[in-house]
Amino acid sequence: MAIKYCSNCGAPVSMRIPALDNRARYVCDACDTTHYVNPKIVAGCIPESGERILLCRRAIEPCLGMWTLPAGFMEMGESTVEAAIRETWEEAEASVEVDSLFALFSIPHISQVYIMFRAGLPRDEYAPGPESLEVALFREEEIPWSQLAFPVISRTLECYFSDKRAGAFRVHIGDIRNRMPQQPSDKMKQTSSSGMSVHPRDC
Amino acid sequence: MAIKYCSNCGAPVSMRIPALDNRARYVCDACDTTHYVNPKIVAGCIPESGERILLCRRAIEPCLGMWTLPAGFMEMGESTVEAAIRETWEEAEASVEVDSLFALFSIPHISQVYIMFRAGLPRDEYAPGPESLEVALFREEEIPWSQLAFPVISRTLECYFSDKRAGAFRVHIGDIRNRMPQQPSDKMKQTSSSGMSVHPRDC
Repeated sequence: MAIKYCSNCGAPVSMRIPALDNRARYVCDACDTTHYVNPKIVAGCIPESGERILLCRRAIEPCLGMWTLPAGFMEMGESTVEAAIRETWEEAEASVEVDSLFALFSIPHISQVYIMFRAGLPRDEYAPGPESLEVALFREEEIPWSQLAFPVISRTLECYFSDKRAGAFRVHIGDIRNRMPQQPSDKMKQTSSSGMSVHPRDC
Repeated sequence: MAIKYCSNCGAPVSMRIPALDNRARYVCDACDTTHYVNPKIVAGCIPESGERILLCRRAIEPCLGMWTLPAGFMEMGESTVEAAIRETWEEAEASVEVDSLFALFSIPHISQVYIMFRAGLPRDEYAPGPESLEVALFREEEIPWSQLAFPVISRTLECYFSDKRAGAFRVHIGDIRNRMPQQPSDKMKQTSSSGMSVHPRDC
């Protein structure tokens, strides 16, 4: 969301390069406060129960009705692990024990960084939180690939099952980028989740 | 910095729990816009040239005059790797080739997440950028441990040389937490960088 007014004094802001900086920022015309805008972290889990993992069906937009891993925006005062555990509780009412970092995916065109952890689900206890319609455990062959909410979730699960078959989990670093439009009709697709492609940096 | 006025309409905000949320946020009393505040990512590199790594001596506060790895706040529209490469150029005028993720450290009390990469320095070309007083290559025995700028940098370098001696680099996940005050005199130290301790999650 664009910044129109200064959060410090309420006066209008303009976009200009502050002193000792090298890029344009929102700067207050009255009190000279610089308002920085930075990428957000989404932290989440791949909750594992034996051969199955836990997915949530979204009760909210975007992608209402589609399946996702439990994940959400990191809050102030948290660690990334605490954020992943909290989001898993809020969306799936599941208590997890974080095992290891699995993926660090940047999504530059929406300025988000996904940090996903493998996590144990010691008890098969879960239920839809306020943002989920249902929560369920899936084996690899049961994953609803065509009903996954976001490209970053598809990518995370592809890497996960690829590693699982290979017998060793590793940390995946990558970018998920908006596909460049090839022809006019392609431009239409760019606002949908299918209009995005994965930059295959690592797997 | 506290939010006092709405960046959308300029009216005063108050702290309250928005509809369908579970924690207090800054919400505009006039246009009802919710203003989310989230942790920031600091991305950086451990630039390697043979047995030596590149450090920068800070030309700005905090910790003016102390040594650090090149790192800084991730900008909108970047990947974490791009941010690390840009910061290394800005602070050390060094062109690096990112090799692998090395550390993901959360600092909850200041709501920052450090993402540090190992990176090759193909040419020994570097110079102080506007935020650095000097830039230099150091062997392990030459590291100015008592003159490092931040606990997260000390921790990153400790893990780095520990892995190097062990002959294998791995990804380090951890938290760096403010030390709890034990006695009144301890409270005084909490605002200084020496008043922080590392939570030894992983190494």
